[in-house]
Parts: sequence; structure tokens; C-alpha cells
Amino acid sequence: MNFRAQRLNRLREAMAKGKLDGLLITHLPNIFYLTGFSGTAGALAVTGDALLFSTDGRYRLQARHEVNKIRTRIGQDAVHEAAAWLTRSGARRVGFEASRLTHAVALSIKQRHARLRWTAGQGWVEGLRESKDESELAAMRQAARLISDVARDVMPIIRPGVREDEVAAEIDYRIRRAGGEVAFGTMVASGRRSAFPHGRATHKPIGQNELVVLDLGVILRHYCSDLSRTAYVGKAPPRMKRWFRAILDAQSAARERALPGMAAGEVDAAARRLLRGRRLARYFVHATGHGLGLEVHEAPRVGKGEKAPLKPGMVITIEPGVYLEGVGGMRVEDDLLITETGNEFLTDAPRALQEL
Amino acid sequence: MNFRAQRLNRLREAMAKGKLDGLLITHLPNIFYLTGFSGTAGALAVTGDALLFSTDGRYRLQARHEVNKIRTRIGQDAVHEAAAWLTRSGARRVGFEASRLTHAVALSIKQRHARLRWTAGQGWVEGLRESKDESELAAMRQAARLISDVARDVMPIIRPGVREDEVAAEIDYRIRRAGGEVAFGTMVASGRRSAFPHGRATHKPIGQNELVVLDLGVILRHYCSDLSRTAYVGKAPPRMKRWFRAILDAQSAARERALPGMAAGEVDAAARRLLRGRRLARYFVHATGHGLGLEVHEAPRVGKGEKAPLKPGMVITIEPGVYLEGVGGMRVEDDLLITETGNEFLTDAPRALQEL
Repeated sequence: MNFRAQRLNRLREAMAKGKLDGLLITHLPNIFYLTGFSGTAGALAVTGDALLFSTDGRYRLQARHEVNKIRTRIGQDAVHEAAAWLTRSGARRVGFEASRLTHAVALSIKQRHARLRWTAGQGWVEGLRESKDESELAAMRQAARLISDVARDVMPIIRPGVREDEVAAEIDYRIRRAGGEVAFGTMVASGRRSAFPHGRATHKPIGQNELVVLDLGVILRHYCSDLSRTAYVGKAPPRMKRWFRAILDAQSAARERALPGMAAGEVDAAARRLLRGRRLARYFVHATGHGLGLEVHEAPRVGKGEKAPLKPGMVITIEPGVYLEGVGGMRVEDDLLITETGNEFLTDAPRALQEL
Repeated sequence: MNFRAQRLNRLREAMAKGKLDGLLITHLPNIFYLTGFSGTAGALAVTGDALLFSTDGRYRLQARHEVNKIRTRIGQDAVHEAAAWLTRSGARRVGFEASRLTHAVALSIKQRHARLRWTAGQGWVEGLRESKDESELAAMRQAARLISDVARDVMPIIRPGVREDEVAAEIDYRIRRAGGEVAFGTMVASGRRSAFPHGRATHKPIGQNELVVLDLGVILRHYCSDLSRTAYVGKAPPRMKRWFRAILDAQSAARERALPGMAAGEVDAAARRLLRGRRLARYFVHATGHGLGLEVHEAPRVGKGEKAPLKPGMVITIEPGVYLEGVGGMRVEDDLLITETGNEFLTDAPRALQEL
């Protein structure tokens, strides 16, 4: 049985458990996961024994090309096509992805397809997607290798006077030339701007004696990687080396807890505990990590208090950082596969603070 | 009075007309339009005489930097922070953007902030955004010029054996080097793939005697441009020249109708009528265009039956195309400003079918 058929079987088990006759899938990465369709508009209806994929005229040919052995309907409004088909299928209780469609669309399907008992829910497909199968891991390893190579290769071009957006241009170019797509707006934040955890590249020239944080990601064969590295232009002052040592140690501490069966929140707690010991915890203003796969951010969250246990096949980021207003920030981020017995970094660019 | 204050005044007029005491804004481009905040998480609460912007810890410094003279609150959940503030403000009837938040979030604000009379609506801010003011048009002209230059400059690299994603890499690199951001996944679709209206660049090498459709966009100073051009590798056969003539003529016909006061649907109808006369209408599988501004797709839709009148300051795309399965496709797309008396193309790369 192929991967897609296995996924569908598991989804139907979840539907049966939830006493659902049907499911309306509106989140595009979920649709890709189940059908192979990679366009930007579509809906998928699932019942116990049938499937309907719907999209609009722009995607007629692409759907024929990508979606195999699934009935496909072309219409003006993919969601309503799928909902109408569910009604005709005789389904009664139908789940919909409440956090994956807008309130306006939810009201409109409830009103226009009122014979169905619409049941708000979430995570049916995302739950399946958490643990990656072999075909997915092959793509993720490749995406992680590519982003590691790009991060390593781009370091030498960082020097005083080069603009942040020039560095970003080089990063994106290398990703593209290697056949990848840029997963999100490449971040290059230097000097005081490095204290913005989400600092997009600007026209600012990089100066001597400045921190530079890079955060870059690739989509390759539909799967993502995500990596951050920090450099210092010049000889880093001792206190910055001390902070950097702390985030590297926090990453190691988090990794040690990132084991199958462990609550995701424990991984976050380990990083935070380490930074607290170095009096840096209050400068660590975000979660330790997040799941990675078809999306750059997906389940599980690796943040405070997350109770859900890690499972083999999950890929998460581990990305502690510290951010000091008016001074600068630093972060190190790698992609980690949870295995049956432990874990494995998929990204491997040098982690040390690069002095350039 | 500055642009942001004017926008806020007009928004409050719309609130008063709708008998709303407050508004909860959750759509990020709308938040940027009103506050200048460019991060990826936040919410804005507006009452008749006060404002609150909320975001999370990752954006504390960026908000301080970008958001002037607006009270800012940092919290775990920006939407709930804003909703709680609206409750404390004494507002009763509060509008929320029903097509700009998920059903799950809508249910949760209704439940957790039950003293407010939540009123689903849409388009309050998008309506203001349709007509661009001078500061916006300056950015849009610059974005349109940049994308025109990139399209012109990249043509010579298209030749047999060059991969689609190599062409996309060159396009993205030029955009980045010029200080822009890539507005969407650059499309390069060659040969039979050119019949996919939304064909992302792949590893496919471009062949001799193939059509190549490029669709590229820039974000510059937060505003978008969007352009499509078609090339033929070799000497184009007469029927392809005939089709291309038809889409150019369709673009001209549409442009002639794109006047202030005209219904947007009339612009679409003009393009469709022209193509019908050439027996190509059924190969034109998408709308003639869309509004452009902070987002690549925004109001107004320039499609069948759209009744809303065009207004001065609107920027729309005009992008007729034809797509023949198994043969190939072609499209020409430009950005058009509606003026007080007529219209003006903002993009200016050569439109003719380029034979390379």
C-alpha cells in the first residue's frame, strides 16, 4: 500500500473514533498530504468509502497532473463543491477544520449545506503529519542538507559595508540555484536590529563590531528546513562569547531531553533552565522550537507547558536565543529528528559564533 | 494631518455609520495600514477615541520601533489582549473581521469576551485601502518599475537547456539585489507546463520551440507589483502569434474600459468579449485581474459580474491569458492605476511575444 493510501486509512480510523461520516479538509498542506495537489486553492471531502477533490478552473490541468485516482471536480468555489458532494453522499455528521477556515466561510457552509451536522474540530490531519514517514524524511534530510550548505557558504560574504538585503539575496540565490524554494522571508538582522527575533533583511549596511543573525529556510520537494546562525563582525567581546556559550549549552540541554515519550514542554523547560542559571532567561522571548514538515511551523509546539509527548518521526527545531534591546541578539537553530531511541540533528552547519 | 491619522478618521466614520463602538482588526496588512507594524502576529482594537495594539514578546522591540503614538501591549495572545481591552473600554457593539480570522478564534473570542456584542463584518479597512494615497502610489510606482526592469533584464538568459528554476533564481536575485522582496513564488512555466496558469518553476529544462510564461512580483517599501510576460524559444508558429495578438488585444480592450465609475466586471467582460471573437474565450480560465497594494491580491476583484465601480487611486492588474492543454499557454499582465480621468500603466516592460 502506498503512503497516501496509508494516510487515508489512518484518517478514516480517526473519523470512525470521532463518529464522523465525513470530513471537509480545507487546509492546503493537509490536502497535499492526502492527494498530492500543490496548488493554492482547493478542498477535499472524505467519507468512509469515497473522496472528492475540488478546485477552480486555474488548476484543472495541474490537478489532472498531480491528483491520481481521486475524483476531481472543477467549480467556482471549491469548498462549496466539496460540501455539496458530502450532502449528496448521504453523510450526516461532518467534521470541518475550525482553525483552517475563516469564520465567514464556516458560517456560509453551515447555512448553505444545512442538512449536514457540521462539527468543528481540528488536528485530524495535522496529527497524522506529526510523525514523518520514510518518503517524507528523505525530502527533509535533503532540505536540511541544502540549508546547512547555504549557511556555511554564505558566511564569507558578510563583512562591513555589505547590506543585510545583499546577504539575503545571496542566500536566496543559492537556495534557488540548488533547486529549492525560499521557505520564508530570509532574515538578516545586524547590530541593534539583531535584537529583533524576526528581523527581516533591510537596506542597512552591516557594520564593524556588530552581531549578525541569519534565519533561513528551504522548501525542497515540498518539505521545509529552518536554520539560524549568528556571526560577529570582528573579535567578539567576552560577554557576547559568554552569552553565545549559554545559548549553545541551552540547545544541548534541550536536545538531551528531546526523546520519544518526553513532553515537548520538557524540552523547552531544559533550555529555559539553563539560561536561568546564566541569568539570561528573561532575554529568551520565544518558544524553544516548533514542528517542521510541509509547513515551517506545524505541530508540535515546543514551548512552555506543552504536555504532548514527542514521538519517533517528529522533526522539531531547537532554537534558543537571547535578545538585548539596544545591544543585539543571537540565536542558534537546528532541525532535530526524534528517532525510536533518541534524536538526530538533520542540519549540520558549524554552530560556533563565527567571527568574521 | 498625516496619512495614518486620516485613515483612522475614515475608519471611525465607517464605524459610526455601522453603529459600532469598537472594531477588532486581525488582518496583518490592515494592521500595518493603520499602525505601521510589519511583524507577523498582532491585533488592533479601535474605539471612537482610543486605540490599542497588541503583539507577543518576539515583537516587543520591533513594535516600539515601528508603532508610534499608539498604546502597545505585549501578551501571550494578541487577539485576546485586544478583546479584553475593548471590554474594559466600555464598548458594547464591536465589529470583527469575519473573513480575516479563523472560525476557532471567532468562537473563542465570543466565548471569552461575552460582554461584547460581537458583530461579524468585513471590508472596513480593505475598503479604505482600495484607493491608494500619494505615499502609497510612490511606493507602488517604484515596485512596478523594479519588476519591469527585472522582467526586461532576465529575458536574455532564457535559452534551451536552462532550467525553469534557474530562471526563477535569476529573477529573485535581481529583485533582492535591488532591495525588493519576492512577492510570491516566482512562476516560470515552459512547454506544456505553460498551460498551468499557476505553474511554479521546476527543475524542467526549457526546450527549443517552447512557450515560457513568467509571472513575477516584488514587494518594495511594503507595496506590491505583479507582472507576467511570455516568450517563445525559437521562431513562434503563426497560430501562436495569432493567440498572442488576441491576448494583447484583450488587454487593450480591458484597459479601455478601466475608467473611474465603470464596474470592475465591465473590464473583465471587455477582455472576454475580445477573446470570444477570436474563439479563445474558453481557454481563458481565470479572472481578468485583481486589486494590488499591500497584498498581491486585494480588492477589487476584476472578474465576471463584479458590480463595484472603479475609483481613482485603485491599482489593478489586467492579465488575460489562454491555456491549451498539451500545447501551452500565454499571458500578459500589467499593473494599471485608475486616475481621475482615465488610467495609466505602472509597469512598462515590452509586452510583445519575445522570440528568443
